[in-house]
Amino acid sequence: MVDAANTSAWKKMADSNPVLEFIDVVLRGSGQVIFMDNPLTGLLNFVAMFVGAATGGTSYEVAIGSVIGTIASTAMAYIIKANRGALKAGIYGFNGMLVGACLPTFLQANTLMWIFVVVGSMFSTLVIMAVANFLTPYKMPAFTFPFVLVCWLIVAFGYKVGGLNTTGLAPAMLTDFTAQTGTWGFADWINSGLTSMSQVWFVASKWSGIIFIVALAVESLWCAGLSALGAFMAPVIAYLTGANIGDINFGLWGFTAALTAPAVGCVFLQPTTRNILLAIFSIFVTTVFQGAISAILTPVGLPSFTFPFNLAGWLFLFAVMTWDTKSS
Amino acid sequence: MVDAANTSAWKKMADSNPVLEFIDVVLRGSGQVIFMDNPLTGLLNFVAMFVGAATGGTSYEVAIGSVIGTIASTAMAYIIKANRGALKAGIYGFNGMLVGACLPTFLQANTLMWIFVVVGSMFSTLVIMAVANFLTPYKMPAFTFPFVLVCWLIVAFGYKVGGLNTTGLAPAMLTDFTAQTGTWGFADWINSGLTSMSQVWFVASKWSGIIFIVALAVESLWCAGLSALGAFMAPVIAYLTGANIGDINFGLWGFTAALTAPAVGCVFLQPTTRNILLAIFSIFVTTVFQGAISAILTPVGLPSFTFPFNLAGWLFLFAVMTWDTKSS
Amino acid sequence: MVDAANTSAWKKMADSNPVLEFIDVVLRGSGQVIFMDNPLTGLLNFVAMFVGAATGGTSYEVAIGSVIGTIASTAMAYIIKANRGALKAGIYGFNGMLVGACLPTFLQANTLMWIFVVVGSMFSTLVIMAVANFLTPYKMPAFTFPFVLVCWLIVAFGYKVGGLNTTGLAPAMLTDFTAQTGTWGFADWINSGLTSMSQVWFVASKWSGIIFIVALAVESLWCAGLSALGAFMAPVIAYLTGANIGDINFGLWGFTAALTAPAVGCVFLQPTTRNILLAIFSIFVTTVFQGAISAILTPVGLPSFTFPFNLAGWLFLFAVMTWDTKSS
Repeated sequence: MVDAANTSAWKKMADSNPVLEFIDVVLRGSGQVIFMDNPLTGLLNFVAMFVGAATGGTSYEVAIGSVIGTIASTAMAYIIKANRGALKAGIYGFNGMLVGACLPTFLQANTLMWIFVVVGSMFSTLVIMAVANFLTPYKMPAFTFPFVLVCWLIVAFGYKVGGLNTTGLAPAMLTDFTAQTGTWGFADWINSGLTSMSQVWFVASKWSGIIFIVALAVESLWCAGLSALGAFMAPVIAYLTGANIGDINFGLWGFTAALTAPAVGCVFLQPTTRNILLAIFSIFVTTVFQGAISAILTPVGLPSFTFPFNLAGWLFLFAVMTWDTKSS
Repeated sequence: MVDAANTSAWKKMADSNPVLEFIDVVLRGSGQVIFMDNPLTGLLNFVAMFVGAATGGTSYEVAIGSVIGTIASTAMAYIIKANRGALKAGIYGFNGMLVGACLPTFLQANTLMWIFVVVGSMFSTLVIMAVANFLTPYKMPAFTFPFVLVCWLIVAFGYKVGGLNTTGLAPAMLTDFTAQTGTWGFADWINSGLTSMSQVWFVASKWSGIIFIVALAVESLWCAGLSALGAFMAPVIAYLTGANIGDINFGLWGFTAALTAPAVGCVFLQPTTRNILLAIFSIFVTTVFQGAISAILTPVGLPSFTFPFNLAGWLFLFAVMTWDTKSS
Repeated sequence: MVDAANTSAWKKMADSNPVLEFIDVVLRGSGQVIFMDNPLTGLLNFVAMFVGAATGGTSYEVAIGSVIGTIASTAMAYIIKANRGALKAGIYGFNGMLVGACLPTFLQANTLMWIFVVVGSMFSTLVIMAVANFLTPYKMPAFTFPFVLVCWLIVAFGYKVGGLNTTGLAPAMLTDFTAQTGTWGFADWINSGLTSMSQVWFVASKWSGIIFIVALAVESLWCAGLSALGAFMAPVIAYLTGANIGDINFGLWGFTAALTAPAVGCVFLQPTTRNILLAIFSIFVTTVFQGAISAILTPVGLPSFTFPFNLAGWLFLFAVMTWDTKSS
């Protein structure tokens, strides 16, 4: 892409200096949240976090947590001497980034919470390895499931102890249905799509959403397009099926489709006509899963996080696994 | 069996004409709900659906949904060029049949519900492939789990959006225990066994139950006998352990044992003395699982569907996996 | 260890007499709850059960149930001609021992409950095989998960039928948070550590806890030390994070860490410096999981049993799986 020369010059510097290498790997970890092995994408993602905080779309604790989480999980990969190829591509950083952004979103920012940001992010590196090893016979990616598992368990632990304050969470309820009321026009749609994009990182800000899309486009126009397609299509599906408009506008219906669509359409499969069609189908499926997993977790008081993307992504990639070899 | 000649003549016709082949595959899909690769079994199963509707054991929407679901999931297998051997045996049709019968049972029959019948059934074909590929290293069948997963997610989605009406469902509760009261005699037992048989397809009708057993017997007396054994033994176990009599008579305690028993006793293992004993044990286990999974899903407001059969069936088949090779 | 000679003389006797062999295998089954293939460990464990009952830390039904469960599950292994090497090491006995101790703890001791102790323990032997076969490609142990699965399902079944009395259980609730109040000193810490040790077997008794540790030390000082480390460290972590002191003192926060620590530190990995550090990390992780799984199961009304250990143990062992081969 446009920055090929810069990247290549940067890469040479990063390879020759341990400190720069660490910074490079942390940036790539940030980029890998959305599958991009590109430090510029990662840098822009961090910028978007702070723009989100500055524009009121999240707190600075969340932005700072995302940096600390990426650093801690990446450091853990160095400490345990993880596979060097994967490490340098940022594979051990992106779940930590999400752990670091997630915990300050739902738990009050006290000392114990920050300990969990650091330790939870470091532990996520072990969980990445565990999940990857479990999936090795199938050559399937772990996606963001390590982050989901670690944060589900830490948040649930928060419900049992006084040291973590869970007031940022919707408490356990038997049902949380809220009817669709009000109107939803073109401006709402644009806003909900951009906000869905930013909610991948627990940010509710259209400005952040724009930066996240640009960050993606720096490395792959296919992925930027498919991710945006997911972020903008899912709110429409949610609206037409009768979802609550407040939730739609807050980006809660589209952030998982924004991940499944590029995963299926251009990252783990080639962007052929068939796979683009599958990616569009996967947006519909992920939107349904988004509502379903939310409903299933309501009595437990846990958010779905990006599990709807994990489940949909796995079902599509597992389905296609033998299909491709068969067709050839 | 008795219809060998007919079947063979029909098979020749079906093989030479694409339309007849499609009808043949749809009928086999219907038969595969209960493991039978036989179009006559499938035809009788469809007849039983409509007899169930005519005798008040279900609605016509459910019967029609079962036909649409089988057609949609089978069509999807053609569209994605699924493995031709499995396709022609109806392997991609039976989960769709259950999706098509399930959704109109629990969701009000509006336009969106019918869209989900079609799209959910088509998606079930992908889920079959995904689950089958996951289980390939173990050579384990996917059973009806693709249907269970798809319908759990669609029904749970229904709880979150206004477009699907979930009034056919028991809402999320912390507990739904109802004590055993009243008497339960011989006629109740016969009725509960036949109704359990028909509840495999979401029908509560002894007449349908009789047809479903006959349909099975057309292809395999072993399977018909074991399935009936499950359907008739489970209500007795449920009664003796103190289950609610209304639930027993409505067939809710026996429909999963009616599937596990033939799966363990004659479909995936040979009907040897040992395996018949295992099948009888599996009826007891499945009955316990039926109550357990129901209780576990109560706070989520989801029915167990046939998951108790899936879980019990996998545990028995996974246990026996190395056992057989070891003994030989 | 100290009893090597005795053990060896006993082993010779046990090998030459079927009755003594069965007793030996039952005792080893008891020892395998805490990973020890040693009949003396197993004998002391049984002694600890009855000491627990005598000192009011549990009921005699629980102690008797643990004996019956070990015998029933071991007998089942003989009946189905399980792998003889594993059988003689007690591998098919320890889940049955836990089933037999668990059910009388949570269900009223009526006839049906005792039937479930026997049949559930026998079934646990099949589940061990099933889980082991599922994990074979990864060479991962089944841990106590067969017991957890069987008891979750039986207890949940108890919620649906009148024949099992679930009054020993905390009923399904949306939340069960209880704030930390009161003080917690040195004597409380010692008591909570020993009680955590005994709660592995559903016993709340410091005297039993001491015997369980001695039983472990008979075979392995490493394991005794790591298990005690888990049992004594977890209550401190729970206290510092604000857990309820009554629960801590009752041993409910430490019994799973008492299993994960030796599993990670000396049983399935060698006790190297790295692995001891991992074991210490696993104590922290298991304590968090202990609270988390409890919270997640609150709306279902099920105890966590030893699942927090299973999950943490698997995550650590799965993570290290490729790591070791890579480092060498």
